[in-house]
Amino acid sequence: MAIHLDSEERFLHRHLGPRETDVTAMLATLRVDSLDELIDQALPQSIRTREPLEVGDPVDEYALQQQLKTIAARNESYRSFIGLGYYDTITPPVIQRNILENPGWYTQYTPYQAEISQGRLEALLNFQTMVSDLTGLPLANASLLDEATAAAEAMTLLRRLHRNRNRFFVSEDCHPQTIAVLHTRAIPLGIDLVVGSHDSFHLDENAFGILLQYPTTDGQIVDHRSLCQTAHEAGASVVMAADLLSLVLLTPPGELGADIAVGNTQRFGVPLGYGGPHAAYFATQEAFKRQIPGRIIGLSKDRHGNPALRMALQTREQHIRRERATSNICTAQVLLAIMAGMYAVYHGPRGLKRIAERIHDRTKVLATLLQEPGHQLVHQNWFDTLRLRPNGRSSQEILQAAREKRINLRSYKDGTVGLSLDETTTLQDLETLASVFGADPTRLRPLAEQLDSGYHGPLQRQTPFLTHPVFNQYHSETELVRYLHRLESRDLSLTTSMIPLGSCTMKLNATTLMLPLSWEPFNGLHPFVPEDQARGYQQIFKDLETWLTDITGLAACSLQPNSGAQGEFTGLMVIQAYHRDHGQEQRRVCLIPASAHGTNPASSVMAGMEVVIVECDEQGNIDLQDLAAKAAAHKEDLSALMVTYPSTHGVFEAQITTICELIHQHGGLVYLDGANLNALVGLSRLGEWGADVCHINLHKTFAIPHGGGGPGMGPICVTADLAPYLPTHPLAKCGGEKGIPPVSAAPWGSASILPISWAYIRLLGRTGLTQATRLAILNANYMAARLKEHFPILYRGQGGWVAHEFILDLRPLKKRTGITEEDVSKRLMDYGFHAPTTSFPVHGTLMIEPTESESKAELDRFCEALIAIKEEILDIERGVADPVDNVLKNAPHTAAEIAAPDWNHPYSREQAAYPAPWTKEHKFWPPVGRIDNAYGDRHLVCTCPPVSDYTIK
Amino acid sequence: MAIHLDSEERFLHRHLGPRETDVTAMLATLRVDSLDELIDQALPQSIRTREPLEVGDPVDEYALQQQLKTIAARNESYRSFIGLGYYDTITPPVIQRNILENPGWYTQYTPYQAEISQGRLEALLNFQTMVSDLTGLPLANASLLDEATAAAEAMTLLRRLHRNRNRFFVSEDCHPQTIAVLHTRAIPLGIDLVVGSHDSFHLDENAFGILLQYPTTDGQIVDHRSLCQTAHEAGASVVMAADLLSLVLLTPPGELGADIAVGNTQRFGVPLGYGGPHAAYFATQEAFKRQIPGRIIGLSKDRHGNPALRMALQTREQHIRRERATSNICTAQVLLAIMAGMYAVYHGPRGLKRIAERIHDRTKVLATLLQEPGHQLVHQNWFDTLRLRPNGRSSQEILQAAREKRINLRSYKDGTVGLSLDETTTLQDLETLASVFGADPTRLRPLAEQLDSGYHGPLQRQTPFLTHPVFNQYHSETELVRYLHRLESRDLSLTTSMIPLGSCTMKLNATTLMLPLSWEPFNGLHPFVPEDQARGYQQIFKDLETWLTDITGLAACSLQPNSGAQGEFTGLMVIQAYHRDHGQEQRRVCLIPASAHGTNPASSVMAGMEVVIVECDEQGNIDLQDLAAKAAAHKEDLSALMVTYPSTHGVFEAQITTICELIHQHGGLVYLDGANLNALVGLSRLGEWGADVCHINLHKTFAIPHGGGGPGMGPICVTADLAPYLPTHPLAKCGGEKGIPPVSAAPWGSASILPISWAYIRLLGRTGLTQATRLAILNANYMAARLKEHFPILYRGQGGWVAHEFILDLRPLKKRTGITEEDVSKRLMDYGFHAPTTSFPVHGTLMIEPTESESKAELDRFCEALIAIKEEILDIERGVADPVDNVLKNAPHTAAEIAAPDWNHPYSREQAAYPAPWTKEHKFWPPVGRIDNAYGDRHLVCTCPPVSDYTIK
Repeated sequence: MAIHLDSEERFLHRHLGPRETDVTAMLATLRVDSLDELIDQALPQSIRTREPLEVGDPVDEYALQQQLKTIAARNESYRSFIGLGYYDTITPPVIQRNILENPGWYTQYTPYQAEISQGRLEALLNFQTMVSDLTGLPLANASLLDEATAAAEAMTLLRRLHRNRNRFFVSEDCHPQTIAVLHTRAIPLGIDLVVGSHDSFHLDENAFGILLQYPTTDGQIVDHRSLCQTAHEAGASVVMAADLLSLVLLTPPGELGADIAVGNTQRFGVPLGYGGPHAAYFATQEAFKRQIPGRIIGLSKDRHGNPALRMALQTREQHIRRERATSNICTAQVLLAIMAGMYAVYHGPRGLKRIAERIHDRTKVLATLLQEPGHQLVHQNWFDTLRLRPNGRSSQEILQAAREKRINLRSYKDGTVGLSLDETTTLQDLETLASVFGADPTRLRPLAEQLDSGYHGPLQRQTPFLTHPVFNQYHSETELVRYLHRLESRDLSLTTSMIPLGSCTMKLNATTLMLPLSWEPFNGLHPFVPEDQARGYQQIFKDLETWLTDITGLAACSLQPNSGAQGEFTGLMVIQAYHRDHGQEQRRVCLIPASAHGTNPASSVMAGMEVVIVECDEQGNIDLQDLAAKAAAHKEDLSALMVTYPSTHGVFEAQITTICELIHQHGGLVYLDGANLNALVGLSRLGEWGADVCHINLHKTFAIPHGGGGPGMGPICVTADLAPYLPTHPLAKCGGEKGIPPVSAAPWGSASILPISWAYIRLLGRTGLTQATRLAILNANYMAARLKEHFPILYRGQGGWVAHEFILDLRPLKKRTGITEEDVSKRLMDYGFHAPTTSFPVHGTLMIEPTESESKAELDRFCEALIAIKEEILDIERGVADPVDNVLKNAPHTAAEIAAPDWNHPYSREQAAYPAPWTKEHKFWPPVGRIDNAYGDRHLVCTCPPVSDYTIK
Repeated sequence: MAIHLDSEERFLHRHLGPRETDVTAMLATLRVDSLDELIDQALPQSIRTREPLEVGDPVDEYALQQQLKTIAARNESYRSFIGLGYYDTITPPVIQRNILENPGWYTQYTPYQAEISQGRLEALLNFQTMVSDLTGLPLANASLLDEATAAAEAMTLLRRLHRNRNRFFVSEDCHPQTIAVLHTRAIPLGIDLVVGSHDSFHLDENAFGILLQYPTTDGQIVDHRSLCQTAHEAGASVVMAADLLSLVLLTPPGELGADIAVGNTQRFGVPLGYGGPHAAYFATQEAFKRQIPGRIIGLSKDRHGNPALRMALQTREQHIRRERATSNICTAQVLLAIMAGMYAVYHGPRGLKRIAERIHDRTKVLATLLQEPGHQLVHQNWFDTLRLRPNGRSSQEILQAAREKRINLRSYKDGTVGLSLDETTTLQDLETLASVFGADPTRLRPLAEQLDSGYHGPLQRQTPFLTHPVFNQYHSETELVRYLHRLESRDLSLTTSMIPLGSCTMKLNATTLMLPLSWEPFNGLHPFVPEDQARGYQQIFKDLETWLTDITGLAACSLQPNSGAQGEFTGLMVIQAYHRDHGQEQRRVCLIPASAHGTNPASSVMAGMEVVIVECDEQGNIDLQDLAAKAAAHKEDLSALMVTYPSTHGVFEAQITTICELIHQHGGLVYLDGANLNALVGLSRLGEWGADVCHINLHKTFAIPHGGGGPGMGPICVTADLAPYLPTHPLAKCGGEKGIPPVSAAPWGSASILPISWAYIRLLGRTGLTQATRLAILNANYMAARLKEHFPILYRGQGGWVAHEFILDLRPLKKRTGITEEDVSKRLMDYGFHAPTTSFPVHGTLMIEPTESESKAELDRFCEALIAIKEEILDIERGVADPVDNVLKNAPHTAAEIAAPDWNHPYSREQAAYPAPWTKEHKFWPPVGRIDNAYGDRHLVCTCPPVSDYTIK
């Protein structure tokens, strides 16, 4: 055999679970001769793509690292003093390594199974406590996507509360990207957004709220107390977008009279990352608790009466309320919120004060110095941000001098110049800044000696914060490492076992993909640097846009939406813009199948659409007759159909082409929810069979880790017709020429995680991506085949095949034995597994998606666990097990329970804790027993409780 | 208060455990008014240094990272094809992140407490199996320091076996650094080392062994079968230094007739790191099992009859055999051995073959191409290394052309040029190499097509390898991640709780210190690149040498010794060279106190010295009378005293200055074992009170992590008189002008971990280093004070104070109750703690060293655990607990045992598993019960057993 000089290691081999011999065995189980045959049978011919992907050949891991280093080197590391809500920060190495770079944290799933998510739930409770303390407001959620959308959520929340009012005032001193996103979000809801000076707000009976920035975008500390009072007297509510670090020194929004505070927690140790991901915060008064968007972590108790955490008030959420939801938010920025919370844990109140004062002190010295050559300070009271009217030289000259020193400043249209200091600002930075402004750097030290350290301006903070022990006992690195590892050990992540979450595609998050996240050229960039400083990023964006449009068979792409739900909203807004631009403004009806993800109707409502539900038949497919009837009925005002493909039932509906045609015939467009794209990549291009818009969950199909419930990314792809309407941004060149205003605070969403998906696509290449899809389908069908004799498989597509996931129907068993799908989910924990998607899209079922990354051995173990659980259920029917006191109803079992002196169950401790052989090799112990969700909602506690309340009984 | 522009975060604050308020409380417990007072009382005035350290002011973590980046940038990244036993390699990112960058692995201690070290022991068993399989020899140890010292260990092992023979033949085709180290080690033992062509070996009755390199240092594959036979017939044994990766394709040494195989496993995924740390291997025939140097992991069983791993045959080791030990080796390169083993686990036999063949194929294509312009191959059979006689241009021209392309080749004195390919060699590299040699790069592809892939030369391997399932089931990244995390969860590391190992200084290994290990400019350098490509490293070395001599009060430093024991040997060799150079060759007596570390006598014997033991008095101090008598008796032949300070009893002996004077008076020098240097840094400079040589355990005092039992580093500092004798190296400029030959394979030992200690010293600075010492002394005295009412404290220094560690005497309790120190150590596991040093230096005791990094809370928990255990022991005396069936004798308790249906102990499951409140917050479960060590030694199994033998019962 000749020598192949191009031969190299294949990443595909590392990414896929089943080995070649496994595939053969699995195909035999399925009674098909080849993988080709399986795919040909399972995937309707009508939607198969004819052309291979254009994404290129696979690259090996080593070569890819070299390529990425070259790309990274194209980003220029300037020092950025731009501010605008983003500040450089020092990620404590102990947090970087043990959270951001630790798969035990970043491969966690969303904490729906709270019993095996206690570590991260505690970390999020710390985050909420930190936000609540610093803002002076009693309730905080577990983070939102960014400051701008958080402000928009505040606006829409208030709108819902003041149903007969319609006007929202926004101070022109807010960050421009926030104002822009508010526009995007206000328009479809018909909110009258008034942007102006906060002095001129006309608060009449139509005003439901106001938004203020604190300190203002150009740094001024304004006392808004009387304005808040005026607003309240007028029946309007007050939102403050506040810089969290400034609140260490300043009177918190809650004490000034704000009803809601929002902001970014990025500067609490989360890298800039060219715009994200970062965790925004949202805090509010108790009265709004059932209206808070996003997730709230709350304390409850477990079966043994011990304290236990879980997501509170879930009945608010869109997966339950659907088109009546208060928001379409279905993710948080968990990993980043945890980092920010741990930054506060590590520094504690004194450490944060030290940091804030150091920044302020340096700002003060610089402000004093810059006045020496005659530059004027526009404002007198500030924390870390100065605005200067230059003297003797123009702002352009100053900006040019800064550029030469590789420094970015903020430029205002009125010829003033701005700068914001941060935790990383060194004495050398101050000297350079001085010289940029023509001041004398040697004056810094003498001035510093004359000035008084600390903040002495108006609105000094009086209230203590972060008084809870958690913020006061982990200040040595040793203590923090142990705390982090203790928490990590309470969570079941992909480092333990498969997390077969239907519709969530919990595939491998390969280490190679994650390494660049720690590289300074990627994580050090401010989102608003000039584009020529971000050539590396721009290349990643361009490639990714090209590849995603190739994969979807569409024409253009926007990387701005920073979550799947955000992508939905963006796609629908683009559709609406298209109709409007074509004189079809009346087209506002959005058809949504009954089986749709809960975010679909919620997003439609946000986009100003009217939701009309289409029925599904008993096979789970869209009821074509009903669809035809409704499309016809709405032919004048039909805007779009929103459909998931393969369906949320895990089935390739053969009629999808017919469905798309039908919608198009009635003047509508097809919005495709890309949640299940993992079943299509390389095999089917949805643009070829009729989809007009599609959002892509990069955190599902394209290997961005779930991070325990965020970050996600939801870029959208669209047809050429829709390309002109892709979202723009006031501070960067992106989007279409008739683009809608921005949907996210940052122009390219959570830019710093895009290299993950870029690298994933490069590593797998055209062949690997397609093979991954084929294996995902094989794995699902293999599991379905192994389980079908034990549980009914609820829906199947052509030939009896499922797509990449499938639904087990537990309802018959429940009827016979009283054992619920929840009991099965919790019992799986005793077997060392995370439950599949429970009761979605059909109540009383489990939806399993194994992904291509799980090995046959792991699939077999999971099947064996379910089969064993089935036997445990049947034991109840057989009268062998007690109908109430059994291993299922009491699951999960904790180690403390097993070790307790008393054991009064009719089954043994061993049956409880070691139900399968592999648990003896490696036992994951759920740290708490079954959690009482209702108790916690009745007694809402969303900040760290006093230690006395929180000790294990 | 004025503004301090230099204010920054202090690393000291992160490094130290106790907070300011804790220190106050602890001082109150000790009834002293201040830390100064404590230190003044505890530390003899006679040895206090008068001058502060010169190491400079502390630098904050963020600034330090920037400084280190600047230094790193001074290392030049050339492509190195030098070979000589070091080859570039691809560290699989999954191994890099989950082992090398994971504190759960790198902060593990040496696995003396096997029950809580099962994960790493399994990983080491994999390593041993890999080595055994590839070398074709039945027994392998758990790694040695480097290939050269492994070869030396083989030589000395054989010497011991052939007591009446004295000659060792070394092929001149061995790596030069190996030959040089053999010289160093042969001379003091009087071995007649003959280096020459293996064809000319004269194997008479005085020859005990031969060493061959396979393939040779210049790449040739030689069939040594008949030579091996000849040697055996002559009664001599054969050692082969073999390239492990080549053995994938070649007949293994064991099948060729080798008795011992040694080599480096670096190219199995361990970065070059400018010379180390890497794991050397050592494999041999069954017959030598009780002679094998270093650690061997073997299978045994636990109390429940389940398989369990631990270190086998410990009776061989120097801490037991002392001057009769077979080697002074007391560490391994555990972390690196684990990485190399996991590289084999991840690639499996097919993957390794693919890699080896790819390298060989590329070598073949290059060899063919380079002959086209007329260069001649010196050898015809090779794996990856070519030696070429240039045609048409001189070797200097070729080397110059290479340098211009940023390529390093090997230069031979005879005008030939060498190159070795490796896993990272790309097609582009081949093209560049072609052009360097004036060959036509475009010919590569056509040639490749004509050539036959695979190795077709002599000695093709026929025997399968890595057939065990562990090497065949974790080939997907998901599977490997889970395997690694499963193993990690079985080990108690510093991420769980304190590891108060007396004499081992298990302090914080801060993340900041560890980050540069992953930087390419530090880990990518071949050890034999020209010095001007390593300016960054050289700066680190220079600084570190300066700082260490400052800290010790000595004059010069060698960074070459790559373990503490190696440092001892080096220091003694330097002393001997000094005496020899001063016409005092007869000075060979080394006085060693009875309480010394076991390595001390072993190292002395290796250095050709005669050990004379000095008694200790009942206070644990050196018996001054006995010392004086023996010094006087040996005044003509006294070479040195070897002494540890503070003593191995954890006490500052006030008479140390007298002792040093006494030795000097009798013409001897003082070797100071620096194991306990953590009690002196900044407070006392040992050079000032009489020490002449000192080794420094950088893995103790200077924060290099223990890595589960290695790497370590043991540089030595010496007086100006001794500086000329510091070790040199044949391939680099280092050491003294009359320096001894090298002690390590690499000129600067394990260079890549030196930045850890460099950064540690920079971060703490003069004030921080001193404060750390003070806190280490405070922590130890605080614990001693808390425990003294419950256990006798065996030794104390002046004023009743201990130094940085102390000994609890358990013998009285043992006498009364039968409970041993081992029972207490194992019971501590149930409390979630690692035992202190057990039965060293005094049988029946525990030696506790808390270090400065442990918080008061953690110290208190540990004290409470011991106090509670004391009560558990007293319960036996009181008749409350059974003398045989009790929580101590049965400790540690496993989860499986707790969950078993039967529980027939007189105490409860809860008493067994949850003896303290913090165990309810976080329970670390020992994965196996008490291990039967003797059983495993009787039934020695040191490779992965068949799966059927290894399932948990």
